[in-house]
Amino acid sequence: MNRISLIICGLGNVGREFAGLVVDKAESVTRRFSLAIDVVAIAELGGSLVNDGKALPVADILEHLRTGGSLESLSYWKKGLAGPDLIATTKADVVVETTPTSLKDGEPATSHMNAAMKRGMDIVTANKGPMVLFYTDMTNRAREAGSRIFISAATAAALPTLDVGVLSTAGADVLSFEGILNGTTNFILTRMKESGSTYEAALREAQEMGIAETNPTLDVEGFDTANKCVLIANRIFGMNIGLDDVDRTGITGVTPEDIEKATSEGKVIKLIGQGHLDGGKLVVSAKPAAIEKDHPLASISLSEKAISYDTDTMGRITVSGGKSSPVGAAAALLKDVVHTALLR
Amino acid sequence: MNRISLIICGLGNVGREFAGLVVDKAESVTRRFSLAIDVVAIAELGGSLVNDGKALPVADILEHLRTGGSLESLSYWKKGLAGPDLIATTKADVVVETTPTSLKDGEPATSHMNAAMKRGMDIVTANKGPMVLFYTDMTNRAREAGSRIFISAATAAALPTLDVGVLSTAGADVLSFEGILNGTTNFILTRMKESGSTYEAALREAQEMGIAETNPTLDVEGFDTANKCVLIANRIFGMNIGLDDVDRTGITGVTPEDIEKATSEGKVIKLIGQGHLDGGKLVVSAKPAAIEKDHPLASISLSEKAISYDTDTMGRITVSGGKSSPVGAAAALLKDVVHTALLR
Repeated sequence: MNRISLIICGLGNVGREFAGLVVDKAESVTRRFSLAIDVVAIAELGGSLVNDGKALPVADILEHLRTGGSLESLSYWKKGLAGPDLIATTKADVVVETTPTSLKDGEPATSHMNAAMKRGMDIVTANKGPMVLFYTDMTNRAREAGSRIFISAATAAALPTLDVGVLSTAGADVLSFEGILNGTTNFILTRMKESGSTYEAALREAQEMGIAETNPTLDVEGFDTANKCVLIANRIFGMNIGLDDVDRTGITGVTPEDIEKATSEGKVIKLIGQGHLDGGKLVVSAKPAAIEKDHPLASISLSEKAISYDTDTMGRITVSGGKSSPVGAAAALLKDVVHTALLR
Repeated sequence: MNRISLIICGLGNVGREFAGLVVDKAESVTRRFSLAIDVVAIAELGGSLVNDGKALPVADILEHLRTGGSLESLSYWKKGLAGPDLIATTKADVVVETTPTSLKDGEPATSHMNAAMKRGMDIVTANKGPMVLFYTDMTNRAREAGSRIFISAATAAALPTLDVGVLSTAGADVLSFEGILNGTTNFILTRMKESGSTYEAALREAQEMGIAETNPTLDVEGFDTANKCVLIANRIFGMNIGLDDVDRTGITGVTPEDIEKATSEGKVIKLIGQGHLDGGKLVVSAKPAAIEKDHPLASISLSEKAISYDTDTMGRITVSGGKSSPVGAAAALLKDVVHTALLR
């Protein structure tokens, strides 16, 4: 049996769910993959949890937090020990990054990833920031350092976009991808079509159901889709574009008349993130498009996501679904952690 | 860069396509996966091609065959050198098995696999026979021998059934799978629904289009679906059922009236292969079922295939598509060959 050790950065919604899954799935991961996982440290704001390099009792810690206990009141708490210093001084195989995303400087994840690469540790990240902002720099430095960066949780999480686009297409060349990569906007467009409502009314419905955020800009203006496209396109095609290279339009301008017109033509309007090579140049866009009713993405409704790859020797392969929630994101992190051990 | 060597068993449609892909995709596989692949031997009826342990000039050999040349007229031909003896005397990393499937004794693939395991070689197989007949024995002996058996090409080929069911769900437990795993029967059922025709008429149409075989028994009686279910269920759930354990019914008894009734209830009849654990017992069936119109498999039409996994932490994940052809099968073999190098 293999045994790997983790440092978790961030104990918010996703971080806690992930730590919980490491406990809950221990038996399953061992049975299926002959793998045991230890959490040896956890970094949070203001300090870190450590146990002299030994495994932390994660189940007890989560129970302590669940019953109202604070991190600070735990004997494992080292006040003021920040993530980068924790990583620099703690032996581990993998850093799991779950801190909130910043698309300005990628912090604090950028510093965590830099510290991990200094020690040649693998990185599993749910945080899009550093990879969207510094894709080339990060991947180049990771290669030099002998670190690997796993980004499933940042590229639609439980929907296995990159597993299918990289591992399953290893006998083919990917010609293009098209995806519905954002559940909130797909929910809004689905509801507009179903009920004939305006964008504003459908957005309000999504907000009332907790699907859209109070400030929905990142989703509805297509930034989230564009971010995922940057990561997916770079990984699939081995390129290094940035967010500025994506032709991006949100869904705020889609009218009931647009949707009615598409329906009358046997089409359906979706926010499509797509990428393909055109004479060696990577062309990536994230914008509303009317697709045919028999297109494999046409039946993806409400907050479901999907991605479709067109390949030369394997034809078209489409994958859809995957839970959109902190648990789904945590499960994607756990999958990538398992992959650090499965993949050479 | 890694370098791996192959012995190919069988140079029929799939074997030739595979050998061609090794040549055509050499640059792509090297670029994407830092991997070079050499074919050091090829076994066929009556003899084998070898080159003193060095790589065979595969492109030249295929061109020779394409222009009417025979295997026997090649200087590499060793008359009478049978597959098992070839494997016993040739150093290689992987045996790629593409001989025709026998569901009686699995031969000649069983002997090829046994010879490969004697030397601890990995096995990549498009041949369902040995694994459907001797799943437990084969996997146990492979583990003891340090061989790994890759069966993508035997489990719906270019449709990545096991990649998604094993690798992509590593952060979850799979609760059940449901699949449309046979393109011929899905074509027939789709055409019956579209045109209101009888089973017999739709079968004839499929035969005229080259989709169904002259003797369609393996497909239409559900054997092909059941075989794939055995392999998928055993691999996903770590079990060891055989074909006799599958509750199997073909589509020959499906009438236009059945289809009309399903349509009137908002349902669609599909040949569903499914598996789930029930109190630790694996329950697997392959039979026609009326599924709801919004079921993720309901929109899979004509000869397309798909599989849907229900998981605990990742929700439902469905993958569809993948070219059904010798090239698609060859690409699935190439993918598995790449995976022998990517996976520990």
